[in-house]
Amino acid sequence: MSNDCQSVNHPRIPDEEFAQRIARIQKALAKQNLDGLLVFGHEAEPADIRYLSDYWPSFETAGVLIPATGEACLLIGPESRTYAGAHSRLKTIRQLMDFRESSLPDYPGSTLMTWRDLFSEFRIHSLGITGYTMLPTPIYRHVVDTLGGDRVRLEDRIIRDLRMVKSENELAIHRRAYRMAEAGLQAAIRAARPGMTEIELVAEAEYAMLKAGAETTGYPIWCCSGPRSKQAISRPTHRRLQSGEIIQLCVGARLEGYSSSVGRALIFGKPSPEIQRFVDTGLAAEQKALEIIKAGRTGAEITAHVHDYIRAQGYGESILYGPAHGTGLMECEYPFIESSLSMPLVPNMVFGIDVFIATPEYGLRIEDGIVVTTGGVEELSSHRRELIVL
Amino acid sequence: MSNDCQSVNHPRIPDEEFAQRIARIQKALAKQNLDGLLVFGHEAEPADIRYLSDYWPSFETAGVLIPATGEACLLIGPESRTYAGAHSRLKTIRQLMDFRESSLPDYPGSTLMTWRDLFSEFRIHSLGITGYTMLPTPIYRHVVDTLGGDRVRLEDRIIRDLRMVKSENELAIHRRAYRMAEAGLQAAIRAARPGMTEIELVAEAEYAMLKAGAETTGYPIWCCSGPRSKQAISRPTHRRLQSGEIIQLCVGARLEGYSSSVGRALIFGKPSPEIQRFVDTGLAAEQKALEIIKAGRTGAEITAHVHDYIRAQGYGESILYGPAHGTGLMECEYPFIESSLSMPLVPNMVFGIDVFIATPEYGLRIEDGIVVTTGGVEELSSHRRELIVL
Repeated sequence: MSNDCQSVNHPRIPDEEFAQRIARIQKALAKQNLDGLLVFGHEAEPADIRYLSDYWPSFETAGVLIPATGEACLLIGPESRTYAGAHSRLKTIRQLMDFRESSLPDYPGSTLMTWRDLFSEFRIHSLGITGYTMLPTPIYRHVVDTLGGDRVRLEDRIIRDLRMVKSENELAIHRRAYRMAEAGLQAAIRAARPGMTEIELVAEAEYAMLKAGAETTGYPIWCCSGPRSKQAISRPTHRRLQSGEIIQLCVGARLEGYSSSVGRALIFGKPSPEIQRFVDTGLAAEQKALEIIKAGRTGAEITAHVHDYIRAQGYGESILYGPAHGTGLMECEYPFIESSLSMPLVPNMVFGIDVFIATPEYGLRIEDGIVVTTGGVEELSSHRRELIVL
Repeated sequence: MSNDCQSVNHPRIPDEEFAQRIARIQKALAKQNLDGLLVFGHEAEPADIRYLSDYWPSFETAGVLIPATGEACLLIGPESRTYAGAHSRLKTIRQLMDFRESSLPDYPGSTLMTWRDLFSEFRIHSLGITGYTMLPTPIYRHVVDTLGGDRVRLEDRIIRDLRMVKSENELAIHRRAYRMAEAGLQAAIRAARPGMTEIELVAEAEYAMLKAGAETTGYPIWCCSGPRSKQAISRPTHRRLQSGEIIQLCVGARLEGYSSSVGRALIFGKPSPEIQRFVDTGLAAEQKALEIIKAGRTGAEITAHVHDYIRAQGYGESILYGPAHGTGLMECEYPFIESSLSMPLVPNMVFGIDVFIATPEYGLRIEDGIVVTTGGVEELSSHRRELIVL
């Protein structure tokens, strides 16, 4: 393993698999008559960069340039040389000022290469771009100014389609990451006391996941309690946990770049019949998803099965999105199980089943990981699928 | 306080100060003959969004639109309504599809407003844009397509200049955030054992900071040990800490959006004379910065004073950047103390003094927070400024 952090007893993606990824993209580039593909990523959106190089930018941003033939190249800013050199599986690394921090530190006297130098070195005259939705405007403009607008095309699907179906190594990492998420959930359950803040509960989960070998959390994990539990996306606050309220807890670990996420509803003391029925509906909706997902099913079929149930129970108004989303190097990634997804699922896709429902007073998210199989699903997490009474 | 997380015993920015920030920007817009200012941010770069609204996007991105007169408006994606509603100090919130997740989830049947609708509602015909260095290309293009390229100008300085000098409330938060960073450092020192992984050491610091009231870490904090200590930016790995090696530890807390960071060098057992001299040089370089920084000094003067010393000690080759950087809602923000900075410092600027030096074998970062005063500096952190022998 070329990465200089010592070998550890968890699964990793071998160098050869990184080489295969590059080779498959080069094959796609040849078909598209493109000289290269440019990929962009940053601290919060590193997925494609990590997929190709294992590198995860921090402070500065990063790119990968894949020429149609030959070595791919990691692109970094002025301060990341030693960091990237130690972490990247790509051994060719170039530095451009466009990947410096967004606050534009000045580097007097610094002479980094230009886009023209880079494209000349790698003989790029036509280019596909991925990550366009987060690509900073100045980078796009510099690329277009250098190559000409008619030589630059958006090609988000090349990598997206590769990332959609997981390899055996990726599945092994996902399995481990979900066990770490469950360890975080268990630690939070053990530590939970009324009067604790949401942030303190999250701290317990985070600490347990890091001790279990996670590299960090899979996303900004949260606990949101009482009226805050209505939040579909959230962050923990200093609000204190109280008896009788729903506590929405979503925790996930990141391992080798791959995310996991487990969502549960917790409560101190005996739940009211209304809360019990509400949580049971969320749990039953997740069961509906688990019983219908398998290779060959379409997003439309799965969504109808789950959403019809939620609507019949009277919570249809709170539906924000489909019942599952792809998960991998992003906690939430393509494909999305929605009524608009006509593509049949294939084995080794990994999804987060993700049921969010809410009333005007409270909400919950039930979330678990699955791998699609020919016969159904392999469950990656299942710990305490119930209203967790503390 | 309009934010719905319960009151806590740490300093916060009051609603009136948020209103003052908007008012000052509106005054600047009037001077520039602009109908409005558009600000962009995402999970890893939320500074301007948080400065104006206290909102910190997660998964989805966000914007703020400040019209020349009237209420400012928070811009979010399809899933952040309840989250933003609870966290934002701006009560006017609009949803646009351009702020959805970068993986482009599909929302069948969803009808969010367009940029044309938005600019029409707020009577925007000419617009300044900040955060251009991270502004996604599609947002820039949609804005330009709607208003016309000659009606859109880059105006990064309006907010940057406001954020540069801190208010009393901001200083109070910074003081607390640095104490939390020191609590994290102390916890890591207490827990450190040979054989522990870098990630495990970071977990101790992180846990202690969250228990001390931090909302999260101030940035992706790290420990990098042995040969990895050469990394100027880093992330912790599963590498095990070993006796006799330099351990570079950088920890910081985030409170109400404001970051802190403290950097130290640690070692198990008696250091070699070479390591002792190396660390002493880093510590002395920090002292050089502390003794020269005060209101009225320029970046050029400060940089020469510190870098001349580092060069005289033989570590000039490892100099990557100036000896201090602004800190606030970004851990590393404008202004940067560099030879190219001719602006004299003014009281209530907050800086991270940040000395990074390296040899081919190892490196270190000594970092502490300070407030610029007329007579010198107020130190925000100073715990164990020494080679910390464990």
